Amino acid sequence: MERLAGQASTQTFAKREVVLPKSSAPRNLCFLVSGRLQAIDFTLDGREVGLYFIDPGDYFAELALIDGQTQPELVISNSASQVVFVPGAEIRPLLFSTPLMAEALCRRLAQRVRIQVNHRQILGLNNPLQRICAHLELLTMGGDGNRRILKAPTHQEIAIMVSLTRETVTRTFQVLQTKGVLTREGEDLLVDTAKLSELSSSRGTGGSD
Amino acid sequence: MERLAGQASTQTFAKREVVLPKSSAPRNLCFLVSGRLQAIDFTLDGREVGLYFIDPGDYFAELALIDGQTQPELVISNSASQVVFVPGAEIRPLLFSTPLMAEALCRRLAQRVRIQVNHRQILGLNNPLQRICAHLELLTMGGDGNRRILKAPTHQEIAIMVSLTRETVTRTFQVLQTKGVLTREGEDLLVDTAKLSELSSSRGTGGSD
Repeated sequence: MERLAGQASTQTFAKREVVLPKSSAPRNLCFLVSGRLQAIDFTLDGREVGLYFIDPGDYFAELALIDGQTQPELVISNSASQVVFVPGAEIRPLLFSTPLMAEALCRRLAQRVRIQVNHRQILGLNNPLQRICAHLELLTMGGDGNRRILKAPTHQEIAIMVSLTRETVTRTFQVLQTKGVLTREGEDLLVDTAKLSELSSSRGTGGSD
Repeated sequence: MERLAGQASTQTFAKREVVLPKSSAPRNLCFLVSGRLQAIDFTLDGREVGLYFIDPGDYFAELALIDGQTQPELVISNSASQVVFVPGAEIRPLLFSTPLMAEALCRRLAQRVRIQVNHRQILGLNNPLQRICAHLELLTMGGDGNRRILKAPTHQEIAIMVSLTRETVTRTFQVLQTKGVLTREGEDLLVDTAKLSELSSSRGTGGSD
């Protein structure tokens, strides 16, 4: 562990900087110390698709390290962020060395698959209001009562997650704020989860994109 | 291994039978011996979304076994299938017991994440022709020249993978067959991958859904 710490390097990134280019060779396991990152990809016709958010305490770039293939997506900073890079050659042998470590890594990968399954389910919704509400539910992890989304993603950052335009997200947020489902508090977003899940599961209503 | 074999049980499933219900408790690691399965989920408004196909030799239901949570999706048989069930309590301790096993499991999970990332990218395409071509490319694994999709999925099975109607898939397949991109051969589908990738990456043309 001491040796690992000696090999690690810290880097800071400004908003919208590339932290990890797509298709880069596996080199590091990365840990987000502060800020927020978003993993994104591009459609064949060049539009951004959002894959997942990375919050402080999360590690990332583990896929390429595991299978030796290139980084499957681009990681960018959504706000000023601090990232620790640990050389893969040092840390890879440790990942599988003990049953405890291996299980922790598998649990983490299983969680990523589950989030993607939920995400896929949301993209299957035709109604934009439902789609946005379901995504907000995912961000609040389906808790009860009032939930806070810390340093809430921008409308654009949400738009690419749910394959809608920024304008549709803005319009929908206005509706949700009027109905008291969402309340802004500085950089955070307070969510009335009871009202939210009512909207995300109701049929009908809501604009089209 | 001998003890495992003794505990395992084999079951056969007819077309469209449920192999694994959604939200079931983790009980078995499952191996597909023959046939083909599809993991599906439902949107909040009740439409099917296809997640991935399971082919002979694949194992599945590993997520619930890893994290102890329930089965995230429904698994159904697309054709008559034979499945071996191995009790999770017997096999789980082995999954993380050696670095080699742990690495194999992590590679498998990494592959699932990569497939989902590709799938997400395809769903970001607005043009149905492009979306179907990109999905066919995924099924042929992007090889060169003529590629065979063994026991090709039905139009409906593909439709739920790419969030289009069965009618749109049928219409698009007719176009692709006329252009010589696809050729039926019994249950298989021959794909001219050069022509296919040309179509999937070209802008414009193609109907709307």
